[in-house]
Amino acid sequence: MLIGVPKEIKVHEYRVGVPPAGVRELVHNGHQVMVQKDAAEEIGLHNEDYERAGAELVETPEEIFERADMVVKVKEPQAHECAMLREGQVLFTYLHLAPDPAQTNALVESGSVAIAYETVTDDMGGLPLLAPMSEVAGRMSIQAGAHCLEKEQGGRGVLLGGVPGVEPANVTIIGGGVVGSHAARMAVGMGAQVTILDRSIPRLRQLEELFGASAHTIYSTA
Amino acid sequence: MLIGVPKEIKVHEYRVGVPPAGVRELVHNGHQVMVQKDAAEEIGLHNEDYERAGAELVETPEEIFERADMVVKVKEPQAHECAMLREGQVLFTYLHLAPDPAQTNALVESGSVAIAYETVTDDMGGLPLLAPMSEVAGRMSIQAGAHCLEKEQGGRGVLLGGVPGVEPANVTIIGGGVVGSHAARMAVGMGAQVTILDRSIPRLRQLEELFGASAHTIYSTA
Amino acid sequence: MLIGVPKEIKVHEYRVGVPPAGVRELVHNGHQVMVQKDAAEEIGLHNEDYERAGAELVETPEEIFERADMVVKVKEPQAHECAMLREGQVLFTYLHLAPDPAQTNALVESGSVAIAYETVTDDMGGLPLLAPMSEVAGRMSIQAGAHCLEKEQGGRGVLLGGVPGVEPANVTIIGGGVVGSHAARMAVGMGAQVTILDRSIPRLRQLEELFGASAHTIYSTA
Amino acid sequence: MLIGVPKEIKVHEYRVGVPPAGVRELVHNGHQVMVQKDAAEEIGLHNEDYERAGAELVETPEEIFERADMVVKVKEPQAHECAMLREGQVLFTYLHLAPDPAQTNALVESGSVAIAYETVTDDMGGLPLLAPMSEVAGRMSIQAGAHCLEKEQGGRGVLLGGVPGVEPANVTIIGGGVVGSHAARMAVGMGAQVTILDRSIPRLRQLEELFGASAHTIYSTA
Amino acid sequence: MLIGVPKEIKVHEYRVGVPPAGVRELVHNGHQVMVQKDAAEEIGLHNEDYERAGAELVETPEEIFERADMVVKVKEPQAHECAMLREGQVLFTYLHLAPDPAQTNALVESGSVAIAYETVTDDMGGLPLLAPMSEVAGRMSIQAGAHCLEKEQGGRGVLLGGVPGVEPANVTIIGGGVVGSHAARMAVGMGAQVTILDRSIPRLRQLEELFGASAHTIYSTA
Amino acid sequence: MLIGVPKEIKVHEYRVGVPPAGVRELVHNGHQVMVQKDAAEEIGLHNEDYERAGAELVETPEEIFERADMVVKVKEPQAHECAMLREGQVLFTYLHLAPDPAQTNALVESGSVAIAYETVTDDMGGLPLLAPMSEVAGRMSIQAGAHCLEKEQGGRGVLLGGVPGVEPANVTIIGGGVVGSHAARMAVGMGAQVTILDRSIPRLRQLEELFGASAHTIYSTA
Repeated sequence: MLIGVPKEIKVHEYRVGVPPAGVRELVHNGHQVMVQKDAAEEIGLHNEDYERAGAELVETPEEIFERADMVVKVKEPQAHECAMLREGQVLFTYLHLAPDPAQTNALVESGSVAIAYETVTDDMGGLPLLAPMSEVAGRMSIQAGAHCLEKEQGGRGVLLGGVPGVEPANVTIIGGGVVGSHAARMAVGMGAQVTILDRSIPRLRQLEELFGASAHTIYSTA
Repeated sequence: MLIGVPKEIKVHEYRVGVPPAGVRELVHNGHQVMVQKDAAEEIGLHNEDYERAGAELVETPEEIFERADMVVKVKEPQAHECAMLREGQVLFTYLHLAPDPAQTNALVESGSVAIAYETVTDDMGGLPLLAPMSEVAGRMSIQAGAHCLEKEQGGRGVLLGGVPGVEPANVTIIGGGVVGSHAARMAVGMGAQVTILDRSIPRLRQLEELFGASAHTIYSTA
Repeated sequence: MLIGVPKEIKVHEYRVGVPPAGVRELVHNGHQVMVQKDAAEEIGLHNEDYERAGAELVETPEEIFERADMVVKVKEPQAHECAMLREGQVLFTYLHLAPDPAQTNALVESGSVAIAYETVTDDMGGLPLLAPMSEVAGRMSIQAGAHCLEKEQGGRGVLLGGVPGVEPANVTIIGGGVVGSHAARMAVGMGAQVTILDRSIPRLRQLEELFGASAHTIYSTA
Repeated sequence: MLIGVPKEIKVHEYRVGVPPAGVRELVHNGHQVMVQKDAAEEIGLHNEDYERAGAELVETPEEIFERADMVVKVKEPQAHECAMLREGQVLFTYLHLAPDPAQTNALVESGSVAIAYETVTDDMGGLPLLAPMSEVAGRMSIQAGAHCLEKEQGGRGVLLGGVPGVEPANVTIIGGGVVGSHAARMAVGMGAQVTILDRSIPRLRQLEELFGASAHTIYSTA
Repeated sequence: MLIGVPKEIKVHEYRVGVPPAGVRELVHNGHQVMVQKDAAEEIGLHNEDYERAGAELVETPEEIFERADMVVKVKEPQAHECAMLREGQVLFTYLHLAPDPAQTNALVESGSVAIAYETVTDDMGGLPLLAPMSEVAGRMSIQAGAHCLEKEQGGRGVLLGGVPGVEPANVTIIGGGVVGSHAARMAVGMGAQVTILDRSIPRLRQLEELFGASAHTIYSTA
Repeated sequence: MLIGVPKEIKVHEYRVGVPPAGVRELVHNGHQVMVQKDAAEEIGLHNEDYERAGAELVETPEEIFERADMVVKVKEPQAHECAMLREGQVLFTYLHLAPDPAQTNALVESGSVAIAYETVTDDMGGLPLLAPMSEVAGRMSIQAGAHCLEKEQGGRGVLLGGVPGVEPANVTIIGGGVVGSHAARMAVGMGAQVTILDRSIPRLRQLEELFGASAHTIYSTA
């Protein structure tokens, strides 16, 4: 299969659909991969890295959308990307269609087969392609919150973990899933007093085994 | 030196001034030890254990107070024990003289040399003979508190550590010395949410290193 | 559905079938709830709490058993409660029928639909309504055991965790299920030397991951 | 002694020389305290809090510098504050004189007794008034570093702790004193791979006991 | 069923197919067990232990192979053991047939029912009889590796955990299954810096929960 | 000062008195250093490393002993090394004189100033040059012991940490100083059940804080 990887064009999106190591795996399994020039330059993955991994470098996204059997991206396609999709072409990326009827219509009209990362399920009913984003989001949330609590950022001047003799901050986490448990780990790691609410007692039990006395669990009601 | 160990006579006092291992150490260092018969029977230290360790068993406390150069006890001497003390005889035991003028006078009149365990200091200014009692007291305090919180004992029906989904109890410990830090260990171990108050920031720092995120420290003011 | 919650009448039973938060959930889902006056007064849940949650307060258990479609309790029904049950009425409570033929017969004769908490299973084959009781029982068992080992309670005068220089007590836990693992956590937390026996090697593996070097596991044979 | 607490005037300095709890301690010990109105309004300590603690509220810094026996501040005095200091008046604050000859001269000329927090030593040779600042600085440093590594802040897009399957960041801490050890705690807590360099082997030993396998220590040479 | 346990004859194999506790279980379940004399003498399990457990002691392996319905061993049968197997007789042991066509043919010719420990699966698809060997292998691997790194054994003179001021060794573990995770535990316990590679992100997540910051996980590609 | 570093000549001694980093420090402080060629080749420190650090390479030990103001070694000088020492020359190395009157006499006769690493004390009364050796010795002792317990080495076939379902080994450590506490860390890390005996209760307290429930402490008597 000929797989195409265009450069992401959404603001503040520096990631890329397939890194060089992924190219190598795909080529190793008999596929061909073409990557837009400088697609991941900003995150330190260079054109030579891609060439060494076996990718063909192409100049324009147009060429990718025209030739590829499957287009692999990170973010949902922007309007003019949707316009380039072809009947039967596979698009593999995050879509987040629910709040975005314009994109949904554009995809339907394109006749392409659009598979959303966030809806792929594994044998256990998990969401393997969403989970890593949730892990990052959970960990970043505490880092961002700690930053916002700094007095200079307009916050209350609270240090999550306090110092000896000064009480730590209270961090309450609503929902103990992937995002919540990774947020809890960061918050516990930074010394905060952490409470996790969840509606599932079995999940609260797992969290209690994981965190022991360093985080508390409360059963959440309506 | 001839050392005498009478049976304790205060209510609920089952301990003994010198256990058989201590007798062995004393005899090993050239002393003689006499122990009242059945002095430690209730805590599983039998007359044979003492004999095997080199002690002479004697029938009455009177014989001990009459012959011994030094009397080793646990609790402060009761009135008729004070009456048996002799000029120059050494008494080594817990005294707690402050609230007890009657005992103080009796000891002064006896002419004996009374050394209180609780006032013996080591090179570092610590109280080596009081510390183990404080360790036991600190650990017992949480055990006793947990028991008293049971509904059947008239308590509020609170389990220190909660269970998954139910918040743990708050335990506030005033003073982070030997008693307080051992109490904190038990409370943390039973899963409670523990806060320690102390007036010494350096001590709060040590406690924070010891307990990490599992207990909080607050500087205590007047 | 009209749900009724009578006051528990068994000795030392202070709990209640539905707390105010549960009433709110039930009312939120379209049910009506009536609660016997002062049903949970002793555990700090007041009549006003129930009224605010949307419950109707009634004076007598008779009225509850007469009107309710489903009666929710904690303990098995006592003889005169069984006599009040009606054909087709649902009783939801702990029953523990095995050792109690009198109750079993009374329930059969009543024609009611009696559902025992302890037999409700979830998708994984677990017993979700029994597990929290097992968690409490496991944690309480060590607290009760520690209390009974005190010399004043007629015990051997052993402190579970010892103190520095004095060995901790040995705690052997037979069965590493919910009760056993929560007992082990308390015992480890109090500093005892803990050994868990179980007939399932996979369970022993889970326990070893949970406790690491702080508890030992032994495979149990006949 | 009449103690005066002016509002801090340096940019981004929201702290205050004495909080209400400190006023209470001082008054309790027989001193009088006057505080400039709204001195700590921005960090949630209100005029009423100070009045309730026993402080006299005054309108201007001029009144404080004129009447007080001792002026307690946070930051080094600004030029016009130095001009208000009087012969024999005590100034107690952070000074950081080394890089600031202008301030040094102004203080010398004022004839006041200026005591720098950062030079007060305790019995052990420690710096008790500098240590809490170092603790805060150490903990903040990692929080600030983590923020700066975010791609949106122009960083390399590295998450300190990684996520499962992605290696954590390396954090190297030069100097294992108060700042360094608190920085190490935050970095370890956030999941980074931490290495601490120090020129004192005894200190490296303490750090290794504190961090175990979660941080590495290296002896630092010229 | 009559079960026979011969002495192992492979070099350096000191184990035995059934220990006395296993004999007791089998007899308790209605089977008969015969054990070759001195079969486990070297590992401290004596003939009397077997007799007390209910086994019949026999002199020769020939008698066992002739009479037993099932032969239980540890290692694959050697050539002359295969020759003793009978039509329909059950052989239960580790076989490792893949690299050993000679043994495979001998077993096929014998007409016996040979069941390999390493292929028995449980309800979850696990390999319950292989896992304990993998646990031992994983733990031993680090112990053996540490020994081989000693200078006197011709190694590089590296101590896995270093000492304060000297960096620990890097241990990279390829594959995070049973062998790998137990190896990781030993390596972490000895203070090494551990990295685990695996191709399964869900497994890496479990390992990260188990090891926290003390081991790192990397997703492995071709 | 001219400092000389000869190659060690005792069997199984691969270390060297000064590594290249130490040479750099000494040169940086105004000294001159000469090192025997290939002195540390076996532990991966090459002649070029020494030259780059500023050392002069010399061919023979004779030249070093003849020219150097101070000779720095690892092990005690062998007979013919003693013979090369000169009046007033400083020898800095481990000496272990107590069991070695021949060496003692040779040193006295040489007229050199021999300073033993193992007797250098710091301000706290510690032995800073002996402690690292004790750390290594303590850690190695458990590694060596684990190796010797392997069945193939003639041991009892015991794995220190056991596996799930099999009890770990008991490790008893006599003396909780530097050697003992580092041995305890390795033994705990490998999963053994560890008991430490010491005659100092304050030391046992430190050890208990360090090891928590993962090792036990017992006060040691005669």
